[in-house]
Amino acid sequence: MTVQTTPVADKVADVAAGESPEDLVARLARDGRAAQRVLARLSEAQKAEALRAAAAALRTAEPAILEANARDVAAGEAKGLTGSMLDRLRLDSDRLAGIADAVEQVASLPDPVGQVIDEVERPNGLRLSRVRIPIGLIGIIYESRPNVTADAAALCLRSGNAVLLRGGSEALHSNRAIQAAFATGLESVGIPAAAIQLVPTQDRAVVGAMLTAAGLIDMIVPRGGKSLVARVQADARVPVLAHLDGICHTYIHAAADPEMARQVALNAKMRRTGICGAMETLLLDTQFPEAETVVAGLLDAGCELRGDARAQALDPRILPASGEDWDTEYLDAVLSVAVVDGLDAALDHIAAHSSHHTDAIVTGDDAAAERFLNEVDSAIVMVNASSQFADGGEFGLGAEIGIATGRLHARGPVALEGLTTYKWQVRGSGQTRP
Amino acid sequence: MTVQTTPVADKVADVAAGESPEDLVARLARDGRAAQRVLARLSEAQKAEALRAAAAALRTAEPAILEANARDVAAGEAKGLTGSMLDRLRLDSDRLAGIADAVEQVASLPDPVGQVIDEVERPNGLRLSRVRIPIGLIGIIYESRPNVTADAAALCLRSGNAVLLRGGSEALHSNRAIQAAFATGLESVGIPAAAIQLVPTQDRAVVGAMLTAAGLIDMIVPRGGKSLVARVQADARVPVLAHLDGICHTYIHAAADPEMARQVALNAKMRRTGICGAMETLLLDTQFPEAETVVAGLLDAGCELRGDARAQALDPRILPASGEDWDTEYLDAVLSVAVVDGLDAALDHIAAHSSHHTDAIVTGDDAAAERFLNEVDSAIVMVNASSQFADGGEFGLGAEIGIATGRLHARGPVALEGLTTYKWQVRGSGQTRP
Repeated sequence: MTVQTTPVADKVADVAAGESPEDLVARLARDGRAAQRVLARLSEAQKAEALRAAAAALRTAEPAILEANARDVAAGEAKGLTGSMLDRLRLDSDRLAGIADAVEQVASLPDPVGQVIDEVERPNGLRLSRVRIPIGLIGIIYESRPNVTADAAALCLRSGNAVLLRGGSEALHSNRAIQAAFATGLESVGIPAAAIQLVPTQDRAVVGAMLTAAGLIDMIVPRGGKSLVARVQADARVPVLAHLDGICHTYIHAAADPEMARQVALNAKMRRTGICGAMETLLLDTQFPEAETVVAGLLDAGCELRGDARAQALDPRILPASGEDWDTEYLDAVLSVAVVDGLDAALDHIAAHSSHHTDAIVTGDDAAAERFLNEVDSAIVMVNASSQFADGGEFGLGAEIGIATGRLHARGPVALEGLTTYKWQVRGSGQTRP
Repeated sequence: MTVQTTPVADKVADVAAGESPEDLVARLARDGRAAQRVLARLSEAQKAEALRAAAAALRTAEPAILEANARDVAAGEAKGLTGSMLDRLRLDSDRLAGIADAVEQVASLPDPVGQVIDEVERPNGLRLSRVRIPIGLIGIIYESRPNVTADAAALCLRSGNAVLLRGGSEALHSNRAIQAAFATGLESVGIPAAAIQLVPTQDRAVVGAMLTAAGLIDMIVPRGGKSLVARVQADARVPVLAHLDGICHTYIHAAADPEMARQVALNAKMRRTGICGAMETLLLDTQFPEAETVVAGLLDAGCELRGDARAQALDPRILPASGEDWDTEYLDAVLSVAVVDGLDAALDHIAAHSSHHTDAIVTGDDAAAERFLNEVDSAIVMVNASSQFADGGEFGLGAEIGIATGRLHARGPVALEGLTTYKWQVRGSGQTRP
């Protein structure tokens, strides 16, 4: 592949002399919030046009973006990054086209802003409406995948939010080039470049300043591994949309169809082991007659099983589980397996060990299914389906900014609606309160 | 009034020997969360029955509650509390009947739990529903009003939440007696008393432990003055539902009906000056022809006005405003007044100084009204109505746990729906993800 040097106007604001991390974040936030007031007034069609302009600018800037990416990859190789880290970092013409296509697809998603959630007329004639509005300024803190720069910016922009991006140092040049192209596209349709800003320094103190910028940044979305999410959740004073763990359970009830149980369990674990919706613990009811078949299907597919004593009795290949296994997200071809005495025992195990991401039951008993749906306290609860469906695309949301396991605001796969909030609009004719 | 000594089973768990504030909060939270799992399974009718039982228990316990309250009032008098503080603290037979009636009224409000927000069937046959569920364990931190003990508990219980109450030391005995009666009522219908718990110590470190109990307490609602709310917002790692200030604006547009403008402004300021929805700044358009009348109406009603130079020219009684006045919530018969050059200048003033609680425009121009409704970024925006309508009861919500100016989750007056969140329920027939 030949990479040409193409100048791109650098849209990344520099750090001013003597500027503290807090001052830098405050300045970027003020600029972003001013740009957001412009975004909040745009129509659905104007925002779609802006995203198509950004996609076109990303395509036009291909040489500059690939050159910047090549610098990051070379630096990563010199630093000894692992093969999988380099793969996440690396862009080529196809991947960049995919990024631009994804931005264009977001343009075609319905705009939640302006939707009326509900409305009512009071006896005194006041008309009340709750109307969806953008959240404001979203901070995105992410690691080495440069596609997040464009993906997150597109979702924020579609929903009328400005975005402040802080990517990983490995992808610094790639992120700068992508952000510059995106901002150029926005400017071409009259939107301030500050609608999408990139933190211009890798000083880690800036992350701390973002996390505590209550009133300046309205929500933080961390995108990356568990240590990043844990740090963000521990230090943030700004609301965080995230999940830390995906310790997902599948419970095979006594009345499960055996072949469905085998297939759902196999898919929930082995389709892709590294995603947050992958099953990490299998619960087998003592009364389910074909537990050996389900277990054998997983073992035969190359999954390591770690079981309690009763599970180990099902197959000699099952290793003993330690206490930690019930609270471990393997993200690998490893699974903990417990045998439980009925639905209540399964519910108790899940209440004690679930990370409240996605938990599933396989059963032919409607009453058991409804109890499971109602009593399992997770963001997503499923009956007779693979937990790997826990995904914004599979839920029909078009794209997702992340999956959230917090209890407030948006939960489960979060897409455009989760990037909005609401205001009350009250229309009167001179009413005064008695 | 004769007060009799009546024994009430003390439902307040004591502090264990050597127990740290963190350990105490963790223990109470675990007990509360266990009780909440019971609440989450109750039907609408069962929760209504529980609230009626709690109201009956409050009435039965009148002698004990009034005796406890008399002790608090006597201690408050000895401590030299102000008259208004003593008045907030004091209960009598009528006030207690009002508290019990309010609990019963909450029983008749529709239960949001179980409501289906939306549902969809995916092409692969998966059926997805978003269903309202309780948030979990709500922490209420409040000052001297003992009625909050019952009001907040009732709203939390109606929406399936357990509650951990931490009241002010002035009302300690009153709160214990009310909580004991409420819990006795719950137990009489088979609900664990731990659904409503009161922190058994006034150690201020317990407040700090509550504010940082992420994962144990799901949301904190502070009820009290600005210093309490500010401390809670500054120190909390748990999500907080609150408003700090109600710096509410009313903008009299050029096309306002003069008599409507006069009446709305007068009501917005003077109906009750101490509530968060009271107007604190009046913006008068230079093109509004009867500004003198509006201003005179307020002055004649006994309101102190502090104006910019152009406002001062309207009436010699108007004092000069300092820079601070535009950011001050008086909660008194004092008002800042500015003259602005048109809608855009009004929007700029509000963007710079509003606390995002409630802002209003008076105008006969529909286009100006719609711009104001869309562009003012506050939880509540009003046209041609007094900002004093910013209230859960006036909004038809039946009651309110508070008014929130944060951007996420619930905003404006928050009642039962704001005490819920949702989960995704997914019903399949054996689907696996390709």
